[in-house]
Amino acid sequence: MARTMVIIGGDAAGMTAAAQARRMKTVDELGIVVFERTRRTSYAACGLPYLVGGFVASPDSLIARAPAQHRANGIDVRIRHEVTAIDVKAGAVIVRDLDAGLESSLHYDELLIATGASGVSPPWPGIDAKGVLQLRTLDDAAEVERLITAGARRAVVVGAGYIGLEVAEGLLERGLHVTVLERLAAPMGAVLDADMAEDVTAAIRAAGIDLRLETSVTGFASVGAKVSAVETTTGAFETDFVVIGLGVRPNAELARAAGIGVGEAGGIRVDDRMRTGTPNVWAAGDCVESRHRITGRSAVVALGTHANKQGRVAGTNMAGGSATFGGVLGTAITRFQTLEIARTGLSEREAAAAGLDAFGVITEASSRAHYYPGAAPMKIKMVVERKTGRLLGAQIVGRAESGKRIDVLATALWNQMTVGEVAGMDLSYAPPFSPVWDPVLLAAGKASAMI
Amino acid sequence: MARTMVIIGGDAAGMTAAAQARRMKTVDELGIVVFERTRRTSYAACGLPYLVGGFVASPDSLIARAPAQHRANGIDVRIRHEVTAIDVKAGAVIVRDLDAGLESSLHYDELLIATGASGVSPPWPGIDAKGVLQLRTLDDAAEVERLITAGARRAVVVGAGYIGLEVAEGLLERGLHVTVLERLAAPMGAVLDADMAEDVTAAIRAAGIDLRLETSVTGFASVGAKVSAVETTTGAFETDFVVIGLGVRPNAELARAAGIGVGEAGGIRVDDRMRTGTPNVWAAGDCVESRHRITGRSAVVALGTHANKQGRVAGTNMAGGSATFGGVLGTAITRFQTLEIARTGLSEREAAAAGLDAFGVITEASSRAHYYPGAAPMKIKMVVERKTGRLLGAQIVGRAESGKRIDVLATALWNQMTVGEVAGMDLSYAPPFSPVWDPVLLAAGKASAMI
Repeated sequence: MARTMVIIGGDAAGMTAAAQARRMKTVDELGIVVFERTRRTSYAACGLPYLVGGFVASPDSLIARAPAQHRANGIDVRIRHEVTAIDVKAGAVIVRDLDAGLESSLHYDELLIATGASGVSPPWPGIDAKGVLQLRTLDDAAEVERLITAGARRAVVVGAGYIGLEVAEGLLERGLHVTVLERLAAPMGAVLDADMAEDVTAAIRAAGIDLRLETSVTGFASVGAKVSAVETTTGAFETDFVVIGLGVRPNAELARAAGIGVGEAGGIRVDDRMRTGTPNVWAAGDCVESRHRITGRSAVVALGTHANKQGRVAGTNMAGGSATFGGVLGTAITRFQTLEIARTGLSEREAAAAGLDAFGVITEASSRAHYYPGAAPMKIKMVVERKTGRLLGAQIVGRAESGKRIDVLATALWNQMTVGEVAGMDLSYAPPFSPVWDPVLLAAGKASAMI
Repeated sequence: MARTMVIIGGDAAGMTAAAQARRMKTVDELGIVVFERTRRTSYAACGLPYLVGGFVASPDSLIARAPAQHRANGIDVRIRHEVTAIDVKAGAVIVRDLDAGLESSLHYDELLIATGASGVSPPWPGIDAKGVLQLRTLDDAAEVERLITAGARRAVVVGAGYIGLEVAEGLLERGLHVTVLERLAAPMGAVLDADMAEDVTAAIRAAGIDLRLETSVTGFASVGAKVSAVETTTGAFETDFVVIGLGVRPNAELARAAGIGVGEAGGIRVDDRMRTGTPNVWAAGDCVESRHRITGRSAVVALGTHANKQGRVAGTNMAGGSATFGGVLGTAITRFQTLEIARTGLSEREAAAAGLDAFGVITEASSRAHYYPGAAPMKIKMVVERKTGRLLGAQIVGRAESGKRIDVLATALWNQMTVGEVAGMDLSYAPPFSPVWDPVLLAAGKASAMI
């Protein structure tokens, strides 16, 4: 008799796991049922700011695979079905059909929790007003589109992290007057050290965005049910709508209610095979905690790359194979207009918080040979363990062709290299691509000389 | 009393060694004398094809540091001085002042041989005709400029490797009719496997270059003293001038004549501190053999990156410090118009020649999220040891933002990673920079599934 694999959540982690298990087991061997509470599966949420900005032509292009395509592939996807409880003793999930209003239960042999994350939404007075949005779904993007079409001219974005800046750029591109409110003294505060954020601040302001730092939201004013202003510690900002871009929090309530272990960082606890502590229950994607390879601690890093990898690992193991997830480095990249911003590993601040004796050093370099057209400046910051010279992290802020160099440093970090070793590596060189000393080598050499 | 460091050759390796030693020792502690037979020091030979093509504005921009600048830095640079012999027993070099015609000798405490390499110039009949050039020096570039200004309309380039293609592109850019002659069945034959060279062949021909494969030069016809045609196994090609782009050979004769060890690959033998087998004699740059990290064998890889690193290592050690050169992977990159071509480690053919049981697999991928504007195609080939899954080499051919991804794979190779490990790495992702599975991860995942 076929075993049953049940998956809660039909986005990156869930559908990747389903597809991977399907590749390994026939329909006769393994039934795969996916419950998804929205109407959609497998779409690129990371593309939403670019959809809003008009860089991406159509919402359809963000959809990797529709439910019908998954069904044709032998995966029983049930949209508009919300799992309301997990009965780990009985080995069953309780499911509500949101359209029919009916509740039922389904037995699982293996269960994957892939419930993702939700946008952080602080309990600010007035946050439920119309026009205060997150940008987490295609429906959210459609609502922004509707507001712009209906004549909105001003927008306030709360938070100057990745999402906040991506959304702000998109709205600016559409001709809106954009204000960005940030609690900290610099943008990208969660990922860049303050000394690397200066160029980001300058770029945001040069673009015409009204960036307000050290400004905390206290609430929202409304006219009727509709938001009219954001109230802050530095005054009120009138606006036609608000996008909250404060990052996300794992959707771990379902697991917690079922007695499945949740960690201190708020995500479901899993081992490197994506097993929870509960037999036959697995978890993957934005809802879990991952092992940070540098600190060794658990961290919540909500990113499509991890969701895909973890989904593949979970699907492999749940189908009887063997795979492990190697952990995270906190590698990330974004751009603001032509400014590229990337990081991996620990910032200097994070290294200090982790109790490591580290120093940081910034190197200015050129993307190409100085004499070659299009050579553009970049800054690379390396964070280095003082005693050993081990690379702990890196940050890059620069123009074209700078950001993706972070992957070289992520690979070096993955292999626990010292900056001295990095400086000696055989990286590619030709005048249209780099100076003789690639910026990565130059930065590592400078850091190495300080040990 | 000051010790004397003598350096033969004032280009990348020699001047880097001099500058490094100067940083470590005062003029009172260490005298540094550099003999350079041309009039110039420290210029970017790699930029010459781009100078010819008009991408680089002026020859001056290729000069990193003039002799006077080095002298101001406490380095006694003597241009137009050729070392004609090394007396290792006496610890002295015999030097000819090319302008004065005088010969003298100078004692050294430490000697660095940094004599570089010369363009390969086969003994073809007629090769000494006027208008048959190499493109190795600023004078060569000036001669090409003179020929074009004087009305040359047709050029033949011999060799479709890096230099040949870079020169061909430059001449095409200047409006010439360009023919490229290649002995092998594909361009870039020394660095790419044939299956990866197809797109290069197509790009060369689409650009309007007359690429003749499997065509070997047999000699040159002249009118008066001036070349008029290149004779080959597939017919004669009339031309106004010829550029030979067949790579280089180490200048090791001076060392060999002095009894200093030269290896099978034709370069001076050195250890990882850049010591030759002769006491107090060191060598660095294009004239030496380096250890290939994958094969463990000695190889001649003439590249500015290695010359710089080796010069720094030699300078450090000669000044009493301690440094080692980590070897080479054969990483390289170039572009032909908008096509980027890169490689690291072993090709499938080289792996077979090295006696390794390996397979190659090509993955097609996109530089950015498929829905993001500017997403461009690339091919990544991975060469993998069958038994262990260890990455042995990689090749990339693609459009914008593809080539430099080779550095991630070079870093993986440097750390002896398996393709399974590579596939699990935490590389950066955002829609403007990569798909959720970066091409590198995608290619590694595909290769890993084949083990």
